[in-house]
Amino acid sequence: MAFSEFRPLDDKSLIEYIKAVPALSSILGNNVSDLSVKEVGDGNLNFVFILLNSSGSLVIKQALPYVRCIGESWPMTKERAYFESMALKEESRLCPEHVPQVYHFDRTMSLIAMRYIEPPHIILRKGLIAGIEYPLLAEHMADFMAKTLFFTSLLFRTTADHKRDVGEYCGNVELCRLTEQVVFSDPYKVSEYNRWTSPHLDSDAEAVREDNLLKLEVAELKSKFCERAQALIHGDLHTGSVMVTPESTQVIDPEFAFYGPIGFDIGAFLGNLILAFFSQDGHADQANDRKAYKEWILKTIEDTWDLFHQKFTALWDEHRDGAGEAYLPAIYNNPEVQLLVQKKYMTDLFHDSLGFGAAKMIRRIVGVVHVADFESITDADKRANCERRALNLAKMLLKERRKFEGIAEIVSAIREF
Amino acid sequence: MAFSEFRPLDDKSLIEYIKAVPALSSILGNNVSDLSVKEVGDGNLNFVFILLNSSGSLVIKQALPYVRCIGESWPMTKERAYFESMALKEESRLCPEHVPQVYHFDRTMSLIAMRYIEPPHIILRKGLIAGIEYPLLAEHMADFMAKTLFFTSLLFRTTADHKRDVGEYCGNVELCRLTEQVVFSDPYKVSEYNRWTSPHLDSDAEAVREDNLLKLEVAELKSKFCERAQALIHGDLHTGSVMVTPESTQVIDPEFAFYGPIGFDIGAFLGNLILAFFSQDGHADQANDRKAYKEWILKTIEDTWDLFHQKFTALWDEHRDGAGEAYLPAIYNNPEVQLLVQKKYMTDLFHDSLGFGAAKMIRRIVGVVHVADFESITDADKRANCERRALNLAKMLLKERRKFEGIAEIVSAIREF
Repeated sequence: MAFSEFRPLDDKSLIEYIKAVPALSSILGNNVSDLSVKEVGDGNLNFVFILLNSSGSLVIKQALPYVRCIGESWPMTKERAYFESMALKEESRLCPEHVPQVYHFDRTMSLIAMRYIEPPHIILRKGLIAGIEYPLLAEHMADFMAKTLFFTSLLFRTTADHKRDVGEYCGNVELCRLTEQVVFSDPYKVSEYNRWTSPHLDSDAEAVREDNLLKLEVAELKSKFCERAQALIHGDLHTGSVMVTPESTQVIDPEFAFYGPIGFDIGAFLGNLILAFFSQDGHADQANDRKAYKEWILKTIEDTWDLFHQKFTALWDEHRDGAGEAYLPAIYNNPEVQLLVQKKYMTDLFHDSLGFGAAKMIRRIVGVVHVADFESITDADKRANCERRALNLAKMLLKERRKFEGIAEIVSAIREF
Repeated sequence: MAFSEFRPLDDKSLIEYIKAVPALSSILGNNVSDLSVKEVGDGNLNFVFILLNSSGSLVIKQALPYVRCIGESWPMTKERAYFESMALKEESRLCPEHVPQVYHFDRTMSLIAMRYIEPPHIILRKGLIAGIEYPLLAEHMADFMAKTLFFTSLLFRTTADHKRDVGEYCGNVELCRLTEQVVFSDPYKVSEYNRWTSPHLDSDAEAVREDNLLKLEVAELKSKFCERAQALIHGDLHTGSVMVTPESTQVIDPEFAFYGPIGFDIGAFLGNLILAFFSQDGHADQANDRKAYKEWILKTIEDTWDLFHQKFTALWDEHRDGAGEAYLPAIYNNPEVQLLVQKKYMTDLFHDSLGFGAAKMIRRIVGVVHVADFESITDADKRANCERRALNLAKMLLKERRKFEGIAEIVSAIREF
């Protein structure tokens, strides 16, 4: 067989590969003569090819043994493709409406073949920068998060299933470690990888590195990230991992997936929406002051949490008498105690989400990898102003998250900054 | 080979086994003619043989595929012997003074051969019932807990090592599940296995099953037990898992070991000392009112936590610049923030320990497996009185643990009940 050991694919070898795998060539009508191949990997880690012809389409994603956006100097196991394929399959089983189907996985080649998410889908982050409203986004993301997180938690599953899968995903340790470094460590210390809008934010970045209370809170979140196997989380659920049209929402790229704290996913998504909000003033112009769009983002933040809360607790209520071992029905056997535990669970989860969301915001402003929401603001003064407001909100949220009782209070706080 | 598949050993086949394993027969001088064999397994799960002759001695522990104290109707994987041997080796490496050496492990036979803990060592629980003081107990147990828990936590280890071992011990899921059931579930619901001193404690047991706030707190602890992989814990660190003389303390039986919350071990030990305290009035007689002994138990409770705190934080300070990834020295880089995070860590751990200790107390009074401390009080009225005071303290501790700031306050609370 031509691909008995790993090699990075290019346009040419990719076609050889397709020919050698019947499951893939059949999707393309067993005809590669009119095939167009486009490499579109604009993420930080992998190569992504879109294959199209008159019979069909598919996406091939290949992991390389280093971090693409840094280069070979930052090695990264290509085994991450195995965990990405596992997570994609599980998410797609639990929420097929919002996750592309996996057609084929090749562990030797670190290669996933999956459904092509066709135009006019674009990366959500690009839509947010362009000021496009997605009226179903909150509903869809709430649905994705509620289903994938509930059904992989001990609210639904047995201890035996849970521990087996926790053990399996412990293998994705290199990607967990990368998150630990870039989210919970680098922004709080001097690191060669950190950058920020300079000199504007020099003292802001320094203040982050010297804020003892912030470091105390970040330690608690890092401990939860490293130690708490609450559910199978996507692990990188920012607005660059979501593709959208006004009618459709597709979540991709779960290569950071492992059993971790549920709030990490919710926080990643909400935190990136808040970054999008604060970037809007940098995108405003004569034609569009972005005021209405900022309101839409705030409404989406509020709706996402509210709908997530509603869907997640509805799943809990529906499966209360199921196999889940966290709250046995014989113990939690009256409406009062059921309400009590659910309220505590959801409040703790809300505070976790705020904390993780804030940490994800901070790292995008003073850490290694930034977001296009801010990066695309060419005027550095303007960009620094936007970033500083986001940073200050995030610091406050991280330190005072337990004082907030509902998402409406968060929206008010965002308005005040 | 005679033992190519599992079979339960008896006095006779045990000797055949020893003969077939050079590592073991050599300990006994390659001479089994004068060998004495005694089965002493008084625990709940396994068979334990002591082998002695003029040349040497050893202990053979064999796991059977069910729970010994219940019978074949409660199946239990014999694979637990694998995890027990792994944990014994690790604990013995980290704290050889207080853990017996493993000579040999046979996975097929679910058999561990280890150092014989010779007389006058007795099970600590028996010593506590007999009213014997162990002046070094607090010091030794604090040492064991500080070393085994610190060196297997992320305070000392890298994420890579941590995740690898967390994944491995996920295999001990059946034993984890047993703890979940008997500690965090059964006492709070009607269960065929539950029992208590009846009819004396009928309404007390019912009150536990109807206490919504207690169930709320137990849910939080259960979640930590199931989800939080903080360190390699012994998993069953009650006073029946410790053998003592006034000079020596030996910790045995870590078959419940897995990566779990540190407070579970500390709580198990302290909770069982508190049970011992409340049982003393049942053992008092004309010759000995046990007043001085109760004071010694209280002092041991206080010293155990204080010495654990001192030793654990000393290890932390000593290894602050080591490979541990929880608190990177470049971030936690000034005495103020170091004090801040350590104080928070130890306070959270104290509250966890109180919660788990209380849960372990409750289950020993209204759950399936009781403790000899109370069971050996033959007068049911007297026993019920002792148990009720312990139960009420435990309920209070479980619900109000976060209000306590130090172990001296706990000792005061114990005195008040």
